[in-house]
Amino acid sequence: MMAAQPLIRTKRTEEVVNGISTQVVCTEFSNYIFVVLTQYGKIGSLITVTPDSKSSDIGTPMFSTKVLLGKDEALTHVCAKNLVTFVSQEAGNRPVLLGLALKDSNIDSIKAMRDLIKTCQVW
Amino acid sequence: MMAAQPLIRTKRTEEVVNGISTQVVCTEFSNYIFVVLTQYGKIGSLITVTPDSKSSDIGTPMFSTKVLLGKDEALTHVCAKNLVTFVSQEAGNRPVLLGLALKDSNIDSIKAMRDLIKTCQVW
Repeated sequence: MMAAQPLIRTKRTEEVVNGISTQVVCTEFSNYIFVVLTQYGKIGSLITVTPDSKSSDIGTPMFSTKVLLGKDEALTHVCAKNLVTFVSQEAGNRPVLLGLALKDSNIDSIKAMRDLIKTCQVW
Repeated sequence: MMAAQPLIRTKRTEEVVNGISTQVVCTEFSNYIFVVLTQYGKIGSLITVTPDSKSSDIGTPMFSTKVLLGKDEALTHVCAKNLVTFVSQEAGNRPVLLGLALKDSNIDSIKAMRDLIKTCQVW
């Protein structure tokens, strides 16, 4: 008889951030934390945020971002790092797969969205 | 006052397929159906399965597959098409984003997994 694997953990929430309805879904996998943050109900871009193993021996790791789907714009990389670097750090440096569709990317909104992601902690 | 967007719909299940614990999570986005099928608790490969718009005017659309993350092997493309083409068709030809980590990819298991995905219908 096999030991049952634990069911994949998912948490989600919805909140109005700076006047815009914002939805978050976080799912834990053994090799990735998957975070969706959307203000359009869709996955706009899909980005991996990965700690750089080379830098881990000299203290805090750097993070590299890669756009898998959607427009590869500088702002996307910046927002991705700002939003989910803390997730990777809290999840033992697991990489994060981020689905992102933002109407509003000003810094105060990003901070509020980070708090929203925190409320969906599955890691 | 804004109209609230409906919360992102997710369904998940777990079943033993050919002796192997198999987990499915399906999530509906407006532009993608996201399906995770895993026998390792992880996202192994990430694949898009997209109907080919060019062929839609001559009947049943063809589907193209693209590996975004993980090993780009022929078997991955075949399994992806076999598993989720029906999801795209049932979801009005929406593309499917598929996270896949299989221990067992024999055809009878694939059929059983397709039935498992059907039980998590969010489209």
